[in-house]
Amino acid sequence: MQGRWKRYLPILEWGRRYNRDTLVSDLLAAVIVTIMLIPQSLAYALLAGLPMETGLYASMLPLVAYALFGTSTSLSVGPVAVVSLMTASAVAPVAEAGSVAYIEAAVLLALLSGGMLLLFGVLRMGFLASFLSHPVIAGFITASGIIIAVSQLGHVLGVRGSGDNLWHLLGSLLSQWRALHWPTLLIGGGALAFLFWSRSGLQPLLQRTGLSQRAASTLARTGPVLAVIVTSLLAWWLDLGARGVALVGEIPAGLPGFTLPSSIPPLWSELLLSALLISIIGFVESVSVGHTLAARRRERIAPDQELIGLGAANVASGVSGGFPVTGGFSRSIVNFDAGAATPAAGAFTALGIALVALFFTPWLAWLPKATLAATIIVAVLSLVDLGILKRSWDYGLSDFAAVAITIGVTLLLGVETGVACGVLVSLALHLYKTSRPHMAVVGEVPGTGHFRNVERHQVITRSDILSLRIDESLYFANASFVESRLYGILEKYPETRHVILMCTAVNEIDLSALEALESINRQLAEREITLHLSEVKGPVMDVLAHTHFLEELTGKVFLSHHHAVQQVMEMEDEKRGDPVRNWVI
Amino acid sequence: MQGRWKRYLPILEWGRRYNRDTLVSDLLAAVIVTIMLIPQSLAYALLAGLPMETGLYASMLPLVAYALFGTSTSLSVGPVAVVSLMTASAVAPVAEAGSVAYIEAAVLLALLSGGMLLLFGVLRMGFLASFLSHPVIAGFITASGIIIAVSQLGHVLGVRGSGDNLWHLLGSLLSQWRALHWPTLLIGGGALAFLFWSRSGLQPLLQRTGLSQRAASTLARTGPVLAVIVTSLLAWWLDLGARGVALVGEIPAGLPGFTLPSSIPPLWSELLLSALLISIIGFVESVSVGHTLAARRRERIAPDQELIGLGAANVASGVSGGFPVTGGFSRSIVNFDAGAATPAAGAFTALGIALVALFFTPWLAWLPKATLAATIIVAVLSLVDLGILKRSWDYGLSDFAAVAITIGVTLLLGVETGVACGVLVSLALHLYKTSRPHMAVVGEVPGTGHFRNVERHQVITRSDILSLRIDESLYFANASFVESRLYGILEKYPETRHVILMCTAVNEIDLSALEALESINRQLAEREITLHLSEVKGPVMDVLAHTHFLEELTGKVFLSHHHAVQQVMEMEDEKRGDPVRNWVI
Repeated sequence: MQGRWKRYLPILEWGRRYNRDTLVSDLLAAVIVTIMLIPQSLAYALLAGLPMETGLYASMLPLVAYALFGTSTSLSVGPVAVVSLMTASAVAPVAEAGSVAYIEAAVLLALLSGGMLLLFGVLRMGFLASFLSHPVIAGFITASGIIIAVSQLGHVLGVRGSGDNLWHLLGSLLSQWRALHWPTLLIGGGALAFLFWSRSGLQPLLQRTGLSQRAASTLARTGPVLAVIVTSLLAWWLDLGARGVALVGEIPAGLPGFTLPSSIPPLWSELLLSALLISIIGFVESVSVGHTLAARRRERIAPDQELIGLGAANVASGVSGGFPVTGGFSRSIVNFDAGAATPAAGAFTALGIALVALFFTPWLAWLPKATLAATIIVAVLSLVDLGILKRSWDYGLSDFAAVAITIGVTLLLGVETGVACGVLVSLALHLYKTSRPHMAVVGEVPGTGHFRNVERHQVITRSDILSLRIDESLYFANASFVESRLYGILEKYPETRHVILMCTAVNEIDLSALEALESINRQLAEREITLHLSEVKGPVMDVLAHTHFLEELTGKVFLSHHHAVQQVMEMEDEKRGDPVRNWVI
Repeated sequence: MQGRWKRYLPILEWGRRYNRDTLVSDLLAAVIVTIMLIPQSLAYALLAGLPMETGLYASMLPLVAYALFGTSTSLSVGPVAVVSLMTASAVAPVAEAGSVAYIEAAVLLALLSGGMLLLFGVLRMGFLASFLSHPVIAGFITASGIIIAVSQLGHVLGVRGSGDNLWHLLGSLLSQWRALHWPTLLIGGGALAFLFWSRSGLQPLLQRTGLSQRAASTLARTGPVLAVIVTSLLAWWLDLGARGVALVGEIPAGLPGFTLPSSIPPLWSELLLSALLISIIGFVESVSVGHTLAARRRERIAPDQELIGLGAANVASGVSGGFPVTGGFSRSIVNFDAGAATPAAGAFTALGIALVALFFTPWLAWLPKATLAATIIVAVLSLVDLGILKRSWDYGLSDFAAVAITIGVTLLLGVETGVACGVLVSLALHLYKTSRPHMAVVGEVPGTGHFRNVERHQVITRSDILSLRIDESLYFANASFVESRLYGILEKYPETRHVILMCTAVNEIDLSALEALESINRQLAEREITLHLSEVKGPVMDVLAHTHFLEELTGKVFLSHHHAVQQVMEMEDEKRGDPVRNWVI
């Protein structure tokens, strides 16, 4: 019983080991992360099309929930770029931007997504995430990064960009080039230039002032915070709000109330698919960040429990007026580098954000939206990895197709269609490949008892024995292909009296494939050709043993292919009394 | 060029061999098949909810089109039970029963389905049909047979049954039990009883009168024709129409005009999915009948060309006012037994039906619909094969699940949902299985150089060498499973210094799996364990050779597993100078 509690509440495990050292580490990390998270939380609320305070709400309770249920010591949960973009495209079709219904839809989305993650976690369905292949994820994140960057360009240029795919966004930006707002562009462009520079130039500069490498690296990450402070001061000093520069404006002070959306029915079903996609993408992103950071400390995370942790975080976000959250790379790396030792660091960060929400929101009112947009652009451009196109092209056509289709469809038709297409295409390509398996005629590598493809190796064969290796499990999608392929190969070996199917790669024979084997057995019998099997695996043999196939089989089942060929040769040679005639090298 | 013509027009091939003998065989077969087809054509029009004459129209031009483009010598194309049922369920939601729009939707469905089949044929996409597994087809045909039989019970009882799934049908029949029409029931029940008896009792009776077995068997198949003649005469003699027995009534005499539906736009897209399902089901049914009959004559059919033949037949049906058609089992077996020698028999049959449509329709007016319903019920009950549930249960859980879900969903939610669910479930089960591959620790069967599962065989292992066989291709869906499973196994073998992955069953390594292998290689290196591969197949090795993996690999790639273990052993023993310490038997 206690083991089960520990499984669902990892805090019972690490909580016992908690001491003064870990407390100090966690508190220090929390201070740094809090400062970093303020602009990030606001920026992702901006990206999701939601009021600024929802970004702060999504950065409080979810962190506490994850600290209770999550297994990673370094993961920082909260609003992240891709999930915020997905939230915007899920909610836009069901509610008007800026309306109360829009906010409630985002809240509902967090609740639905949280519920699904919890359900998957209880059912231990973390394996579902493995159906998202690396190429699909890489393509999706790259395309999302591009869309996010372009969508934020409008804020930097001082025009209104809209649309959830690349062409709509570019079209709406280009149609407004005359409306370009120079003061906004100066602020936004300046922030952008500073942030790009700070990624590579700030750390060396700090080190030259005598800071240690680690301190310099941590401080260099505060570039966005510096940009926020400097542009806010500029906006206050020059009264940029009055000159038409969009500012964050008044954020209601205080903590979120616990509420549930008031109007559920009409939206409910339309958001289900979006919630599913957000859950899966969020889970995959979070787990891959979690694995990466855990590996650096030789720790492990438990994916099925991570589902519960993220589910709880999303439900917590929903009940406190936030939107969907997950573990993000950039925020987690800050947490990790700042020395967070346990999930408690997340809870302390939540406390920090709560203090900001209570007492510091007036200071944020002067912050230009262009600065936030600039921080988003710089953050997401590091996600864009067009090199995956080249790497997958070098590797193989189907991986490349999965990447290219995911990137293309995401850019052209939006994030949801993009990721769904990517998954379907990669599954379809895999099924297509297994439906047309490689089959090789094999012969013995002289003197070894090992059998290899006659087209690749110098091997010995006999004209009356056809050794055929099938490089795939036999199942419905390839059963008839294998059957007709076998007859096709037989036409090239007209003297064949024995066919030995080498089943080293046959991991399964389903009912459709069994019927195909029975048909092959009958057809070969009519041509007076005997069918044998070799190297059938234990699990496959168990299944065949329950059927009549082994009785009907005209030949035998051999443990090794070498043994099979030996025995069949002896049989044939006894019949003919001529032991060497048929050898071909 | 001529080869291509022959591929698309098989008539150029068999036409040259046409002679007086084949002409006589074909003509004789055509006469018999024509007589059989008249009630069948009317019955399936009734089943599809269409006017009687459309059944005749669907039995003329399509036969000629198939004769030109098809490859089977015995297949008879026309309205069949399952496709007629699918037509009814596709058209019912988009047009009112009995309206002109209903007929036009059925015509459009034939055109769409024909167009899709032609497209698949030109693109040689016959392989698509193999994604329908045998269990799914068997389950679908069985469930469809039950639905059809129940749907026709209303005509036999003289009440109106409606609905496209079992519960709706049964519900509507039971709610009307008071409206039972006794004269109809007497005619229909009598026909039903006679038809059931004629399936088993008629042939022996005819043989006792001195007929040869073949002649008796052919004549016994005319049971439906006898029932039609006798009940029509009864209806005329007793004036059953006036007593409320539903008769076929006046059928417009003459040949169909060439027309296209007048109003296309609103229906078009709603019928697309139905047309796709009808195309695939029709193709699979037709090809399996074609294969069965071709095998009996040691002929072969060309599936990709069959797509063109069936596509042309459906387009021909559509332009001549008919509905979707395909090659049916019962009609083809009559054609085959009657001795049809070439596809020309089909064209002659079309001529026979045309003569009936021109001159004999007044004779059909007296035919009771209950008789037609009885012929359908008897025909489809032979399709019902509930034994597939037991056979698949005995075979394996996933085949059983595919059958049970297909039957259940088809009965409860209708044919289209049923077949779609069946395909998706069988693919999902296959993917699920391959996402959690079997992995076996193997050891040498003493003195053989062959390696087998340590849990199934008496084998030799060494505590510092872990030989691991992965029984599946490595791809994105199982990459992380294999990785964590490998670490799990390693925990049970703490003395391991070398892991040798035996890749006999690994037919593919995709980019996601390569990343997993790289990660395994790094993780093992950190624990000072060397990773080797053995028996990597040619195609897989070709792909790996293009990457940096082989350079990064801490160990080697061996051609045979035996060789790998030998070499690694020698290496280790040299290092330790103690050659026997580690042996475990």
